[in-house]
Amino acid sequence: MDPNNPKLTSFVAVAPDSPFPIQNLPYGVFRKNEGSSHCACAIGDFVLDLSLLEEEGYLDPKVHVFNSPSLNNFIRQGRRFWQSTRQKISELLRHDTPSLRDNKNLLQKCLLPQRDVTLLRPVDIGDYTDFYSSQEHATNIGMMVRDPKNPLPANWKHLPVGYHGRASSVVVSETPVLRPWGQLLEGENPVFAPSKRLDFELELAFIIGKDSEQGTPIRVEDADDYIFGFVLMNDWTARDVQRWEYVPLGPFVSKSFATSISAWIVSCDALQPFRTKGPEQAPKPFPYLAERALDSHYDIALEVSIAPAGQSKETRVSRSNSKLLYWSPRQQIAHHTITGCNLRVGDLMASGTISGKDKESFGSLMELSWNGTQPIAIGSETRTFLQDGDSVTMRGFCQGAGYKIGFGEVRGKILHAKNLH
Amino acid sequence: MDPNNPKLTSFVAVAPDSPFPIQNLPYGVFRKNEGSSHCACAIGDFVLDLSLLEEEGYLDPKVHVFNSPSLNNFIRQGRRFWQSTRQKISELLRHDTPSLRDNKNLLQKCLLPQRDVTLLRPVDIGDYTDFYSSQEHATNIGMMVRDPKNPLPANWKHLPVGYHGRASSVVVSETPVLRPWGQLLEGENPVFAPSKRLDFELELAFIIGKDSEQGTPIRVEDADDYIFGFVLMNDWTARDVQRWEYVPLGPFVSKSFATSISAWIVSCDALQPFRTKGPEQAPKPFPYLAERALDSHYDIALEVSIAPAGQSKETRVSRSNSKLLYWSPRQQIAHHTITGCNLRVGDLMASGTISGKDKESFGSLMELSWNGTQPIAIGSETRTFLQDGDSVTMRGFCQGAGYKIGFGEVRGKILHAKNLH
Repeated sequence: MDPNNPKLTSFVAVAPDSPFPIQNLPYGVFRKNEGSSHCACAIGDFVLDLSLLEEEGYLDPKVHVFNSPSLNNFIRQGRRFWQSTRQKISELLRHDTPSLRDNKNLLQKCLLPQRDVTLLRPVDIGDYTDFYSSQEHATNIGMMVRDPKNPLPANWKHLPVGYHGRASSVVVSETPVLRPWGQLLEGENPVFAPSKRLDFELELAFIIGKDSEQGTPIRVEDADDYIFGFVLMNDWTARDVQRWEYVPLGPFVSKSFATSISAWIVSCDALQPFRTKGPEQAPKPFPYLAERALDSHYDIALEVSIAPAGQSKETRVSRSNSKLLYWSPRQQIAHHTITGCNLRVGDLMASGTISGKDKESFGSLMELSWNGTQPIAIGSETRTFLQDGDSVTMRGFCQGAGYKIGFGEVRGKILHAKNLH
Repeated sequence: MDPNNPKLTSFVAVAPDSPFPIQNLPYGVFRKNEGSSHCACAIGDFVLDLSLLEEEGYLDPKVHVFNSPSLNNFIRQGRRFWQSTRQKISELLRHDTPSLRDNKNLLQKCLLPQRDVTLLRPVDIGDYTDFYSSQEHATNIGMMVRDPKNPLPANWKHLPVGYHGRASSVVVSETPVLRPWGQLLEGENPVFAPSKRLDFELELAFIIGKDSEQGTPIRVEDADDYIFGFVLMNDWTARDVQRWEYVPLGPFVSKSFATSISAWIVSCDALQPFRTKGPEQAPKPFPYLAERALDSHYDIALEVSIAPAGQSKETRVSRSNSKLLYWSPRQQIAHHTITGCNLRVGDLMASGTISGKDKESFGSLMELSWNGTQPIAIGSETRTFLQDGDSVTMRGFCQGAGYKIGFGEVRGKILHAKNLH
């Protein structure tokens, strides 16, 4: 049966609002106590240890990829293998499939409560690229730092603007984030101090699933073959460091201190029912960027909440959706490779901050507080930028008929800056 | 005996002007025919297969790192191991050490003419960072594209400006480079065409030799421990693609199509006798960037030659020196990690184009032809930017007393753009 069939149910109990019903089966990596790291799927409140299933012969007996601290070996097998694996896992987890359900011995070992394990960064990231593909975000930033009357850079509607980010410092959700020191402008002079304008950026990112050849651009119509799945991402940014450093070569240490991604990668196959068209593009892009299909985008509801220092209660500060992005993942891949750059399995490609038109949908504090001039309410407190102890949580999900395809959370808490003196 | 002693000689014949005397012993990776890839040292016109020496017990018997397609495992062992290994290899290769010299059987297998093997990219690069640390280069570019009266960006003397580059497309010397397609400006409008302003950039780069911890900045005085060695680098750039894309997030696909490095990594230990002080820094940088020692820089003569399409005769177009760089490698590391970014073994950090004051010392065609307005002579021809079939060769060496510590060459030939229609 189609693993996306809304009627499917599992013998594993899944709450109605769980982000991880049997229709999702996102991939991750976990470790229990001090054991070795294994690949897994999420189902309800549990992780399913795929390396044990593989070892016991429940999956493809010819392939061994899940006894690994990253999903790269699995991803490298290619789209058909991803699909057949997902089909097998879906069948194993169905309420009416006895093979795993009735093997209590194995089940006890391979189905573990998520709260009892540590989730790790799911992939080894080769290169990380960050785009800037939300027109509303680029417009907001342009109004604040460029020209309110002409906020978008001249190239913005002709190509998906992007830059290379830092792969080494990409961390998994729940990793705390130290407030960074750096050079900041006070008036017109730089000072060396902990950042006073620490921000989040709400992004969606995809994981490259196939190597490409250097010198050979990937066409828009072939680009889906290169995408394994998606993660939620928080592109932490020290705005005051960025402002001083970014001319002329772009953001550097203002972002490279930490970038958080969700522990779970939702496969393109699970997202397939939620494909949708993107915004109209005018002017028409060059042919190498032309989207001919009407399913270029994904309808994923996104939100950001903040729990202020010392409080557990969150306040939602933003609601957005990835379908608002101007440039599609396929267009991003086509542009990324047009001059000949090659992609590798595990590369991370992020959308850039996703903002909508209304203030409630802005994807960063810089926009929400309009460059720090309009504090926003968070419970009984207010914020312009993040304070020590604040926890930022991002969530994302697709709403199906009676179920949700979710990413879980990307959460990070801001820790007081180190003492460098 | 000190491996840097100028009096040392090897039983392997080394021509007086060879870049690879026994005082050098740079590391690389090679493959013979369709065999597997091994780590090696260069000595004269030969490569010395270190995996065979290791297997035969000539090196540290407890460590096996050289039967590998990259030097990362070796590098990961740390500075003391690099030093003891270099000491051992130096002793093995001395004219008066019989153990290897008289083992004709082994020698025949482990000492191979360089022309009979294929040299490969010597390291797996995690992240690649490109700085912009030559004042003369930044000034030249600023005069052309910013403001002739105020060419340096405001931040330039306060921090080593840099950006993240693309690691996947770093290739070894001799790899041909396809002319890239991209969006170029013709007048004020973009067109999609093969780049008309393809350029080289003369750079020196270092390889990170030690992992650092996320959240913990590396101090200038500790930074040498994190540098394994240096390579020559050509940072190929499509100027016309760059001009259109780089605002506001920096260079992206204008550089990510290919970056060439030398096959040989010259260790910091071999470069030690050629350390020297750098230029005076004014204003004085923040304390986290302060260089207290007088050996922050390396005296490495650099040059670029071009053999025009269809000709084998080269013309030298530039002579420069890495001691001209304003910011030192140690300062680059301190700044790179100041906000908390972690480094990993195999990361590549490049200087940015190295130019001197005189036109003869400019490190790119953009500068040499002053933005394409002043063609330069190359043999009987002239060039503003690179034409199909042109070969660019970079060389670098330190001049010792009667010997040279060289990098060999970084060479790349421009191939006609692909037919994308």
